[in-house]
Parts: sequence; C-alpha cells; structure tokens
Amino acid sequence: MNFLDIEKKLKTKHKEIRRIFTSQDRKVTKNSTRWKYHEEGGGVSTELLNGKIIEKAAINFSSITGTILPKSALSKKLRVNKSKFHATGISIVVHPDNPHVPCSHLNVRHFYVNPKIWWFGGGYDLTPYFPFQDDITLWHSNARKMCDKHDKSYYKKFKKQCDEYFYLPHRNERRGVGGIFFDNLNNLSKEKHCNFIIDVLDSYINSYIQIITKRYKSRFTKSQKDFQLYRRGRYVEFNLLYDRGTTFGLQSGGRAESILMSLPPIVKWSASKSKQFISFEKNLLKYL
Amino acid sequence: MNFLDIEKKLKTKHKEIRRIFTSQDRKVTKNSTRWKYHEEGGGVSTELLNGKIIEKAAINFSSITGTILPKSALSKKLRVNKSKFHATGISIVVHPDNPHVPCSHLNVRHFYVNPKIWWFGGGYDLTPYFPFQDDITLWHSNARKMCDKHDKSYYKKFKKQCDEYFYLPHRNERRGVGGIFFDNLNNLSKEKHCNFIIDVLDSYINSYIQIITKRYKSRFTKSQKDFQLYRRGRYVEFNLLYDRGTTFGLQSGGRAESILMSLPPIVKWSASKSKQFISFEKNLLKYL
Repeated sequence: MNFLDIEKKLKTKHKEIRRIFTSQDRKVTKNSTRWKYHEEGGGVSTELLNGKIIEKAAINFSSITGTILPKSALSKKLRVNKSKFHATGISIVVHPDNPHVPCSHLNVRHFYVNPKIWWFGGGYDLTPYFPFQDDITLWHSNARKMCDKHDKSYYKKFKKQCDEYFYLPHRNERRGVGGIFFDNLNNLSKEKHCNFIIDVLDSYINSYIQIITKRYKSRFTKSQKDFQLYRRGRYVEFNLLYDRGTTFGLQSGGRAESILMSLPPIVKWSASKSKQFISFEKNLLKYL
Repeated sequence: MNFLDIEKKLKTKHKEIRRIFTSQDRKVTKNSTRWKYHEEGGGVSTELLNGKIIEKAAINFSSITGTILPKSALSKKLRVNKSKFHATGISIVVHPDNPHVPCSHLNVRHFYVNPKIWWFGGGYDLTPYFPFQDDITLWHSNARKMCDKHDKSYYKKFKKQCDEYFYLPHRNERRGVGGIFFDNLNNLSKEKHCNFIIDVLDSYINSYIQIITKRYKSRFTKSQKDFQLYRRGRYVEFNLLYDRGTTFGLQSGGRAESILMSLPPIVKWSASKSKQFISFEKNLLKYL
C-alpha cells in the first residue's frame, strides 16, 4: 500500500462524510473550495453554514508534497528536516447551532518521507457546553470498541494522550470530554494502520450522528446559546495557542482559510460573567 | 528613579485613563478586578462593557515580581534566565461598537532585573475596519510630534518596528494601520525613558479620543457591523498566534482573564464571503 492508495481512500471518505452531514441537515449551505499547495498537491475545503443542525462545519481533505518538514510535524524520534515529504489527511470540526449538541473534532493524517520514515496520526474529541453523561458514555464506549478491534492497548493509551493533548494550561481546563488521540503509528504495516484510521473515521461519524439525532431538537434559552458562544472562546484559544495541526499548517505555508476553518462561526469573550453563566460553567467544569 | 516610582506613576495614569474613557461614554459598565500574582504583586483589570461608544475595552495595570523570566520577555541581548525580575505596565485595548471607529491598542511596560539590566517598551497601534485617511493621518502625525520631542530618530524607527510587529504572516496582512512600537529602551536615564512612556500614554489618549469623537455617531448598516465582527477575527488570530505580550503573560503564569481581556466581545469566522464583504475587504486591504 503506497501513499497514493491511502490518499485515494481518504479522498473517497471525505466525500462520503460530506454526504452524511448534508443528508442529515438539508437546510445547510455547502461551500467547497479546491486549493493548490504552493509546492505540489492541494485539497478540498468544505464549509457547511447556517443549517438546522450545523451552524458551521469544516470538512477538509488535503494531500500535499513539500520539501521542508516544519518542526511541529516531527516527533522527537524522527528528525528529518529538509527532506521531501508527503502528507494527506482529513480534518473535521462541527459547531452545532443547538448548545445541547456538543462540538466535535476529528483529524486523521498520514505522513510519508521515505520507505523507512512514515507514520499515521489522528483522533477525535468531543466538546459539550451542556454535558449529558449518556452522550459522553456513548462517545467513549464506541471509541473503546473500535480501538479494541485493532489492539487492546490502544484505547487506554490514546484516551490518555487525548486528555493530555486537548488541555489549556492557562485555564487549567481540558478542552472537552476527550476521546482518542494518537501519533507516530508506524509499528505495523501501512495497510493495518490505514484500516485503523478508516475505522476511526467511521466510529466518529457513527457516535456523533447518534448524539446529534438525540439532541438537536431540544429547546434552549438565549442565555444557554450565549453560554455556548462564550465557551467557544476556549476552542479558539486552544486552536490558536496550542494546536499542533494549526501551527504545522500555518508554518508549512498551508492555506490559512482552510486551516482556520475550524474556528467557530460566532464567539464571545468577556471577563464579566452573570450568576447564571457561573452556574452553567460550574456544572460544565465537573466534566472537564 | 526606582522601580516603585515608575510603578506609582503608571498606577496613577491607569486611573486617569479609566476616568477619561468612562466620562466619554457614560452608558458603559465598568468591572474592575484586583488580582494577585502567584509570586508577588498583582494588578487591576478593568473591563468596560456595552457602552454607547465602547462595546468592550480592557484597561489593565499590573506590577509583578517573579523569579523566572520567560524567554518571550527577553531580547537576544539580555539573556538572564532564572533571575528575579520586576515588571510593571499598562495595557489598553478598545473595541468600539460603531464599525467606523477603529479599534485601538496601547501597551507600556518597564522591566527591571538589576541596576544594569532594565528596559522600557511599549507602543500603540490602530485597527480600522472602515478606514478614513484623516484619522490615520492624525494618528501618525500626533505620534511623530510626540516622538520628535524626545528623539528625532524615534518615530521612523518605532513606526517601522510597529509595522513589522503587527503583521499576520499567514494572512500576509498587517493588523491595522500601525503606529509606534519600541522595546529594550535603556540607553538614557530611567527618568527620560519614563517621561517618554508617559508621553506615549498621553498622545494615545489624545489621538484616540479625537477619532472617537469624530466617528462614534456615524450611521452604519448591519452588514458593516458584520464586517467588523468578521475582521475582529484577525485581531484574535494575531493576539493568540503571534503577540509576545500574550505569550509572555500566559507563560509567566499571569492571570489568563486579564491577559485575554484584549479579545473582542463578539467575533465571527467564516471562509465564505458575500460580494459586499469582498468589496469592504478590498478597500480595507489598501491600507493594511
């Protein structure tokens, strides 16, 4: 299995996922942009906007070839600066309209430098604003089932890595309730790792569509919506201050509009909070 | 002149500036928070909210003592990691309600490590969404007059540094129309540098109040307001991706709520733009 086979599988999956979201939310507007990387390759960025369920989503596919591997893409083990590299991946962020539906994020990626240096990475995590234990349990138990099919050690390790990665030190908060996160997978065959990331995609969609379906019709108040807009600020803070995907993308001269498509549609910041916000937040922080 | 004298002057100036803004905008709500730094010292963070002129402003004073100087605070000349340091400063960001009034930012600071190692830094810059040449000319010519009183070489140098600093490489855009920016001032006496930063504060207030007064009553459309919310996204991107003040603050365990008080009250992100937005942006980018 070579880079092009993996790229093709991800490209197909990207279309399939777009179809699933747009068939769930028939009111949503879809804007797709094809773009070219300044060296070789490019991607398709799809923004979904103003739907019944989805306020904004970014569903992006990319496959690029470059000659300098920015530091942020490298694990400490794999220092191969200034080599030619290929990178392909899918990234998804969904910001739902209803504050009872959590925001979700997925990313899968494959880096290839040479027959000895390549790896797979990815993961998914869930960011509720008004958390429901049922949803969180479903999210994690589906992740565990999926991981266990591949390797009994995966779930525990990848869940821990997810909690460590999606953490805002300046707030002393996790970004959300976690999920799985993995990087530098290269101990098995490419086929096996590729099958794993495809399963990651499928289990993400499966879990998230179940949660959406359960919650998107539930009533919410203006103040609950406002609380969602305010907590979305944390999402922005994480993505711009700490996310390696964002810094890798921007450092490697990636397309800013695509990389930053993960940012929420509307966000509020204020240091002054109402009593109700403080109580909403107190409840949320029990889960983070 | 020692650290405490400078701290006292800035503290007084902080109060004076708050009074000026609140007397200009009598509808604004003022929330002040006193906080303590985890080692020694602390600050006063004042958030102004929902005024007639000011949608949100942060007017912050701080004076802290710490034992580790984070890398981001150091110029290359002054590597003194793990020493005790004192830092005091004022930072101001104003996000006006009317999109015809530009957003403004000021920061002045004094670092003291020992009698040989100390410096002053600061500056101010203006970020219009619908630029008026008159305002930009006033802003720069007041800055020049003020600088010229201190050193004929300052304005040209500090304006250039401002343009270089407030730049978003991933967008290939300047943040706004600039102003002045300086760091590591330590060639004259502390008195002289302190007088300079006090003049920086006064000329900022003088210029900005003039611009506010001229523009805050002008009519604007919903789509102009929306364009302001969308362009505020660039402000967030700069502050979280590139601003050294933000990274220094967060790295040194500063109070996140105070450091991030510079972020706008409401922000929108979308990769999809209307024709009108494209035309607003085309006009704005001529100035950036």
